[in-house]
Amino acid sequence: MSTKFSGVIPPVVTPLLPSGELDVPSYERHLRRMLDAGVNGLFVLGSSSEVVFLTDDKRRQVLEVAKRVVDGRVPLLAGVIDTQTERVIDHIRVAEEVGVDAVVATAPFYALAGMEEVERHFRALHAATDLPVFAYDIPVCVHVKLPTNLLLKLGSEGVIAGVKDSSGDDVSFRYLVRGNKFLGSPLSVLTGHEVVVDGAYMSGADGCVPGLGNVDPDGYVRQWMAYKEGDWETVRKEQDRLAELMQIAVVSQGVVGYGAGVGSFKTALMLLGVFESNQMTPPVLPLEGQNVEAIRKVLVDTGLLAD
Amino acid sequence: MSTKFSGVIPPVVTPLLPSGELDVPSYERHLRRMLDAGVNGLFVLGSSSEVVFLTDDKRRQVLEVAKRVVDGRVPLLAGVIDTQTERVIDHIRVAEEVGVDAVVATAPFYALAGMEEVERHFRALHAATDLPVFAYDIPVCVHVKLPTNLLLKLGSEGVIAGVKDSSGDDVSFRYLVRGNKFLGSPLSVLTGHEVVVDGAYMSGADGCVPGLGNVDPDGYVRQWMAYKEGDWETVRKEQDRLAELMQIAVVSQGVVGYGAGVGSFKTALMLLGVFESNQMTPPVLPLEGQNVEAIRKVLVDTGLLAD
Amino acid sequence: MSTKFSGVIPPVVTPLLPSGELDVPSYERHLRRMLDAGVNGLFVLGSSSEVVFLTDDKRRQVLEVAKRVVDGRVPLLAGVIDTQTERVIDHIRVAEEVGVDAVVATAPFYALAGMEEVERHFRALHAATDLPVFAYDIPVCVHVKLPTNLLLKLGSEGVIAGVKDSSGDDVSFRYLVRGNKFLGSPLSVLTGHEVVVDGAYMSGADGCVPGLGNVDPDGYVRQWMAYKEGDWETVRKEQDRLAELMQIAVVSQGVVGYGAGVGSFKTALMLLGVFESNQMTPPVLPLEGQNVEAIRKVLVDTGLLAD
Amino acid sequence: MSTKFSGVIPPVVTPLLPSGELDVPSYERHLRRMLDAGVNGLFVLGSSSEVVFLTDDKRRQVLEVAKRVVDGRVPLLAGVIDTQTERVIDHIRVAEEVGVDAVVATAPFYALAGMEEVERHFRALHAATDLPVFAYDIPVCVHVKLPTNLLLKLGSEGVIAGVKDSSGDDVSFRYLVRGNKFLGSPLSVLTGHEVVVDGAYMSGADGCVPGLGNVDPDGYVRQWMAYKEGDWETVRKEQDRLAELMQIAVVSQGVVGYGAGVGSFKTALMLLGVFESNQMTPPVLPLEGQNVEAIRKVLVDTGLLAD
Repeated sequence: MSTKFSGVIPPVVTPLLPSGELDVPSYERHLRRMLDAGVNGLFVLGSSSEVVFLTDDKRRQVLEVAKRVVDGRVPLLAGVIDTQTERVIDHIRVAEEVGVDAVVATAPFYALAGMEEVERHFRALHAATDLPVFAYDIPVCVHVKLPTNLLLKLGSEGVIAGVKDSSGDDVSFRYLVRGNKFLGSPLSVLTGHEVVVDGAYMSGADGCVPGLGNVDPDGYVRQWMAYKEGDWETVRKEQDRLAELMQIAVVSQGVVGYGAGVGSFKTALMLLGVFESNQMTPPVLPLEGQNVEAIRKVLVDTGLLAD
Repeated sequence: MSTKFSGVIPPVVTPLLPSGELDVPSYERHLRRMLDAGVNGLFVLGSSSEVVFLTDDKRRQVLEVAKRVVDGRVPLLAGVIDTQTERVIDHIRVAEEVGVDAVVATAPFYALAGMEEVERHFRALHAATDLPVFAYDIPVCVHVKLPTNLLLKLGSEGVIAGVKDSSGDDVSFRYLVRGNKFLGSPLSVLTGHEVVVDGAYMSGADGCVPGLGNVDPDGYVRQWMAYKEGDWETVRKEQDRLAELMQIAVVSQGVVGYGAGVGSFKTALMLLGVFESNQMTPPVLPLEGQNVEAIRKVLVDTGLLAD
Repeated sequence: MSTKFSGVIPPVVTPLLPSGELDVPSYERHLRRMLDAGVNGLFVLGSSSEVVFLTDDKRRQVLEVAKRVVDGRVPLLAGVIDTQTERVIDHIRVAEEVGVDAVVATAPFYALAGMEEVERHFRALHAATDLPVFAYDIPVCVHVKLPTNLLLKLGSEGVIAGVKDSSGDDVSFRYLVRGNKFLGSPLSVLTGHEVVVDGAYMSGADGCVPGLGNVDPDGYVRQWMAYKEGDWETVRKEQDRLAELMQIAVVSQGVVGYGAGVGSFKTALMLLGVFESNQMTPPVLPLEGQNVEAIRKVLVDTGLLAD
Repeated sequence: MSTKFSGVIPPVVTPLLPSGELDVPSYERHLRRMLDAGVNGLFVLGSSSEVVFLTDDKRRQVLEVAKRVVDGRVPLLAGVIDTQTERVIDHIRVAEEVGVDAVVATAPFYALAGMEEVERHFRALHAATDLPVFAYDIPVCVHVKLPTNLLLKLGSEGVIAGVKDSSGDDVSFRYLVRGNKFLGSPLSVLTGHEVVVDGAYMSGADGCVPGLGNVDPDGYVRQWMAYKEGDWETVRKEQDRLAELMQIAVVSQGVVGYGAGVGSFKTALMLLGVFESNQMTPPVLPLEGQNVEAIRKVLVDTGLLAD
């Protein structure tokens, strides 16, 4: 299993028309660009995809277009992000109908609970589907950190097939990778932290899910190949360059959170000619004016865009 | 507006069959019991209603039954709780179809944003419906505290019609009530903190939305009447008794969060003969064994149940 | 014990000369003004006294001046605020030498620990002194909330003599007061939340430690007398007026935290002619310019200062 | 400057007699053992040294013994950890008298403030001494994260000479290292995260301050030498071994926080024959019984102790 889901698996940003509808041609172009770069998988309907901003109808449409374009070339992972078990299972049903290769679920959120509820949640999801289930550890959104021991226990029992770690806790990440190795590697352990993938590779990660991989999939693929070959200087140099590129997410003025982060990816893809527009979903506004120019400058400085 | 939504408006707990389906007879019994106690409104599909655990189909069913039973006797408020604007608007459409008197929405959650996004969110909800919109301030679930100044601004412009304050911040609550008064009381300001409603009345609250009001609606109605008459000793004594009763939410061992809180309300209602069962939604388990007995003891000690 | 430490016990703000030294004449004036207003005790070297900004030498000087001025007219409580047990005991020794009536200690801070360490901490303080020890519950500074059950246990065993509750958690406050009553009132339970003292009195508080009491001791004394007489409308009206006055702490622009809060008290006392200067301790700057004018306006609006 | 303070600089754990006094012979042995291992500096009176548990007298004694033993062989850094500016400057005076090579200070803590106060704090410390000042970024204790931009600004102006980063935020760490490089490396940037030093080296760290370096200084010195030679496989393998050894900090049952972390270092040093006892300062208890055995097992499994 862990060999099936490894390498560079970008969380795919969702292009929208000014009307708010899915921009299908842009989406197709975007997916093909990443496939052509040699990514090892694609993760749609994750946080970077604005999944929690999208109505159920749009979520289904995103899955269907992705399924059609990917067409089995690489594994397709689908986020099934919702507040609680039964609502997540509703999303799993749709993902099954469309025919994805794995689903990715967070701990329950909004209502307070304890770790026993979190464990029962993942067990209930596994019981409800034959698809591999990834645990998505993203405390900044969910306000719960999935404990390493729980993840290893669920992995060793086959309840979950992998972990997307967006916790920012590099210590627990190392222990997760090490514990997984001792158990015979039942889990595919992926890091979501695009700025320190080199450190995660030092820890033995099975791959990465970098939001910035939407903008520069080639960089992350080169880094992954270097890691596989033990060429650590290249791993490090690519990372330093990608850290520079990641400045697109912080150069905007007067914007915080989602609009600055995913908003910068969309803006960069617009500037690169992949997206028609950098439209966001309400209540988030697209970046504009000087903020777009600041992003353009980073793209030029890092060589992604001609001056 | 503020006179329409005032007094005791319990957030209605949702009875379920062991199959997980809505227990319609228990729900009808429960709604009628509160109406007979003289509550001034009913708030369905709030946090205490397990709204984020319920599929969209069940949410609609809850609304339909409530609408039928309430039948215009008191205002019916419906929670439209979801992660972001478009998803909330989908819930508003259903609430409109069923015919409720107001909708209650939180700040967006899961994805990080700033206060500008929160403000745009409420403006977008107001623009999408003719129903009065209540802002539900519940940072423990949403991880954002709605600023007093923002609430007053939205109130003075008619964007929101009221606030359900479950923030636990009694200082900001006082300033919200005072600011509202200075503005001519455009908002109905309700407290959700069932243990210190007397303090909220001291601050000048327009009413309360007490989860514990599911169990003892008479107590909160008596307290409200005393408040209206300036009988502070009765306000205080009722509160002390209700604080004692609220021990049902903490006497359970080995259970945390939602299962202990809403779980205790359901268990008390089962013991009182209102609910058939204290079934919870996955992944939360119903209370059982010694925990049920501990709750029974509190009900007996506080005079709600014969020994 | 609980009768000895009850009523209005302001946490005394510390006037400083521009050189940073204690402004003794201003301090004497300030202490006498509060004594004349009829306060029931004085708490020096608390958070509002800038205790953690003061060197050990200055802390001793503050105690000595306060001791001399108070001269047994009301109980004198001394903060012994430091990171861990042995350092706190060093401060207790000084307080004993000066001759105060009680010491006030927080949970340990800076280094992470569990509740067992917190409990041992208070037991060690009690074992080290014959003075009554108050537990100071101030999670915003200490990042630990003292659990109600622990406080009641320590109270029933005579380890602590009282609680100064600055937690902002009015629910736990009510349960602390109620639990204390069931145990025969071993604790003096005081609230530190100057804006909602009326709610704390509804809950049965033994008194208050209001920072704003530095500015308007008369108001809090009037409110306390009304509470003792069951005159709730006066309790409430005084509170509404004091809430208005508390706006001095938020009207400053470009200043946050300590400089805005304690800084506003010092500025008000300067405007009222009690302090020579509103000097703060480094690295906090005194308020100036428009911020001073904004505070003056609040004082005028609330009748404390002639126009 | 950044070349002077680089490499492995352990934060030295403080051995105590059962009476609570400094165990001078153990301390000498411990310091010599690390010097013999080839460490590049020693940091005393940091968090791992229980600095905030020690009275001022003991702090001075720790400095004096360390000064005498180190005797100029490597740079000696002294923690000057206290709540606010003037109290920190008092500690700096003592450090100057003893004759250390640099002082290490955190942001102010306990009292709430903003970043302007933090900046003024570090400027005031620099103005008060000729010693190089290190900023100690440890939000888990201080509850403030030092912003990268502030650190770079203070570094470029010569206000601070280095950063000890114990923030656990590997993304900001990378940007701190990169920004420092762009500025001509005014800062010595050291990581305090002993489990992921390899990742910090990938990011370009100037060295590390590993608590675990008390137990296994040789491992961290070997890793540092490998890093300097570009031998990344050795860097990584040492790290994996050290991560295994770090399990001593989590194998204890029924103990949390400081007692489990620093307590495990002291216990390991006792088992290794360096410390006479694993005594802690009140209110923390030393580890005992099965917890000592669990730590012994980790030491045996990782080859530090013969079976």
